[in-house]
Amino acid sequence: MYETQVKVRFCETDALGHINNTSYFIYFEEARIQFFEKMGSPMNIKKWEYIVASTKCDFLAQAYFNQVLNIKTFIEKVGNKSFTISHEITDSQTGTLIAKGEAVIVYFNFDTQKSELLPDAVKQFLQSHIASV
Amino acid sequence: MYETQVKVRFCETDALGHINNTSYFIYFEEARIQFFEKMGSPMNIKKWEYIVASTKCDFLAQAYFNQVLNIKTFIEKVGNKSFTISHEITDSQTGTLIAKGEAVIVYFNFDTQKSELLPDAVKQFLQSHIASV
Amino acid sequence: MYETQVKVRFCETDALGHINNTSYFIYFEEARIQFFEKMGSPMNIKKWEYIVASTKCDFLAQAYFNQVLNIKTFIEKVGNKSFTISHEITDSQTGTLIAKGEAVIVYFNFDTQKSELLPDAVKQFLQSHIASV
Amino acid sequence: MYETQVKVRFCETDALGHINNTSYFIYFEEARIQFFEKMGSPMNIKKWEYIVASTKCDFLAQAYFNQVLNIKTFIEKVGNKSFTISHEITDSQTGTLIAKGEAVIVYFNFDTQKSELLPDAVKQFLQSHIASV
Repeated sequence: MYETQVKVRFCETDALGHINNTSYFIYFEEARIQFFEKMGSPMNIKKWEYIVASTKCDFLAQAYFNQVLNIKTFIEKVGNKSFTISHEITDSQTGTLIAKGEAVIVYFNFDTQKSELLPDAVKQFLQSHIASV
Repeated sequence: MYETQVKVRFCETDALGHINNTSYFIYFEEARIQFFEKMGSPMNIKKWEYIVASTKCDFLAQAYFNQVLNIKTFIEKVGNKSFTISHEITDSQTGTLIAKGEAVIVYFNFDTQKSELLPDAVKQFLQSHIASV
Repeated sequence: MYETQVKVRFCETDALGHINNTSYFIYFEEARIQFFEKMGSPMNIKKWEYIVASTKCDFLAQAYFNQVLNIKTFIEKVGNKSFTISHEITDSQTGTLIAKGEAVIVYFNFDTQKSELLPDAVKQFLQSHIASV
Repeated sequence: MYETQVKVRFCETDALGHINNTSYFIYFEEARIQFFEKMGSPMNIKKWEYIVASTKCDFLAQAYFNQVLNIKTFIEKVGNKSFTISHEITDSQTGTLIAKGEAVIVYFNFDTQKSELLPDAVKQFLQSHIASV
């Protein structure tokens, strides 16, 4: 499990007064990339190795400007060429569950534009972060 | 079924050269709101009646700056207090399937902060747009 | 002069109920790129020839979700390696002035990462769009 | 002077590989709001007291994904109903100047939709942060 925090920016809210639904995917991307960095993945666009195949978010409570959100990141499943990563967003003070998200990430070669087998080292790192472990 | 088009903006791309995953949810929101407008829903924030409970996107092909995307919107399911709306994004010239999305929308009273029963007129409109009809 | 329209998206508003200040720069970018396209500039990232050196916006009236904005684009000044482009955003129905913007654009070679002299054809096109002409 | 840092998010870049010009205004807004918070301004939308009248950015060097940016915030000028705030963005490691920004902020009553005189306490706080002091 990997944990990080974001503070809601003004421009991430919308006219309903709460965080716009599209902003949650910014937070998931942010948490995911910090997780990749922790994994030792190069933070270099020219060597980028991952592409999002699918992503979703369940919105459980509204959240607001300037709120500090806690994001927990888990690995759900590790396949041969892809893995499923999940996130849980809670209010950092009360612990109230705000959103749950998930993404399927494919190991992808941007030069050949084809998916590839996950390297063993990556697979092992991911497996050691499986939610239930 | 409701159909609309968007042209990909420069700032909706990312350093990988393609549309960033978060931008697709902007397109779904745009298509959804045009559908609400067609339904006769007031385009007035103070009378806003809907909240997103869940949303997802499957990314099937990458898309790029300045590409014209066709978005088809369908209703999948109509419940008592919520409904499921889906979208299919294709390239407007070649018809290549780029993304499929879905959202669960709850009929919501922002004054009381509670969900409510969908009005009959809305239910009927939604049912007449069920995908298989 | 070049003219285009945008309809304000939900996610471009903020919790104050109006369009967030950052969204206006999305509209300016959109108008600018349509102007580049009209000029015959390749809409191809790998051949991209322009970089923004400076940009500003004066906010004269608030604008809101779903409002249709009219954007007029002018050329203010043409230099040897750069030019100044300006925009005027009005409400498409009432004509109320909402925002005025400006950007200094440099003719830029992304391979060498250096500015270059504006080609004569570009200069002529730009000069024919000078505001006062 | 107030100082803060942001780490560039993936979705804040564009297909040219660098930070999109619109994203800098997100950073300025972020720095400005942290400055307001330090000033004791309520971080509550319903009591919000400020509106942006004008903003600009000079882009001096490109910046990239995952770069840590240092943002210094200064007060330039204090008027009766408005003030000018400025920002300087540098690379947090090398100190390279990346962007300079400025915004004119009006003390604004969102209920009456009219500007008002800056309270004395706010004026004093602002004056004590004038750049040259």
